[in-house]
Amino acid sequence: MNQNNKASISSIISELISHLSQLPGIGPKTAERLAFHIIKAPESKIVSLSESLIKAKQMLTFCKICFIVTENDPCSICSNDFRDKSILCVVHDSIDAFAIENTNTYSGNYHILNGSISPINGIGPQELTISNLLDRVKNNPPKEIIIATNPTIEGDATSTYIINQITNTEINISRLAIGIPIGGDLDYTDNKTLVQAFNSRQSIR
Amino acid sequence: MNQNNKASISSIISELISHLSQLPGIGPKTAERLAFHIIKAPESKIVSLSESLIKAKQMLTFCKICFIVTENDPCSICSNDFRDKSILCVVHDSIDAFAIENTNTYSGNYHILNGSISPINGIGPQELTISNLLDRVKNNPPKEIIIATNPTIEGDATSTYIINQITNTEINISRLAIGIPIGGDLDYTDNKTLVQAFNSRQSIR
Repeated sequence: MNQNNKASISSIISELISHLSQLPGIGPKTAERLAFHIIKAPESKIVSLSESLIKAKQMLTFCKICFIVTENDPCSICSNDFRDKSILCVVHDSIDAFAIENTNTYSGNYHILNGSISPINGIGPQELTISNLLDRVKNNPPKEIIIATNPTIEGDATSTYIINQITNTEINISRLAIGIPIGGDLDYTDNKTLVQAFNSRQSIR
Repeated sequence: MNQNNKASISSIISELISHLSQLPGIGPKTAERLAFHIIKAPESKIVSLSESLIKAKQMLTFCKICFIVTENDPCSICSNDFRDKSILCVVHDSIDAFAIENTNTYSGNYHILNGSISPINGIGPQELTISNLLDRVKNNPPKEIIIATNPTIEGDATSTYIINQITNTEINISRLAIGIPIGGDLDYTDNKTLVQAFNSRQSIR
């Protein structure tokens, strides 16, 4: 019924709102605000946003080595000789690699799994790029593999599966530390994290 | 520096993120998530989102009577003979009229001010559509004017200004009730709202 009213004002606005509200994290209210912002914004800005959407969709591909989203294949990380090829950081998605890149502390290479093992969603190891990772590790064994999957049930399952598949014992395998985030509050930290933070406590003197 | 790293992965992605993060309420993190969603979404969806952005920008105009955003001028509300032309609801923006339309309870007409009086931002009555409202009221006096400006300093200033300009004492002027919202918590309600809610309390028996 709301839809009818919106449509009665303007079908173009209601179409835009409906498109925007299909984006993740954009509820109907935010979609409405965005739509009215777009209507008021200078046309040049909206044209360039629109072009940039299409460009992202049409010109991006996946790196055939690490499977990161990229416009050049192989990607700028895999083809960068200054990066340390002896360390491989394994993440779920390209966005995770972006997050790590933003810290400006990691100079190794990546492997993007393109998801996580999740039997409940019908995603098994063969749906991910795990076999490519194993090939990569076999053909060109790194010194260290950093498993940077999310500390969730799916992330843990994915991590365990990968670790079991890597039989080369020369390779060090590590996992990101689990603990209380900076700025976090002990009081609001869940039990499991707190237990891990206790177990992984580090000596300071 | 973060920008450099993002650009080093893909200038197309960083361009898209930068465009998205210029939208209101979209921080850099949300923009990143949206960008990666867009990259994964089916191309047809992104094309239609993109077209709908351009269409909204190019085909929408303002109703010459009530100044609502519309694709037809006069708008579908002003040109609807089933709506009660003797009631005029005055709001800041088209989005407010949308919100009221969504309640399915109001069947009068609107007048969109296109903002609020805000001396600090250099917005005086002449920047708004107040003179058009006064002409409208003069040429075709309604029975009632509902002032539905926001209960903020700017909204109150705008409301007071308009009320002072309407000299025709035959016209009833009302304002939306101020009180505790449904689902609200007295404890978290600010003092001014609480005072208003007390003063406007309604007898139940």
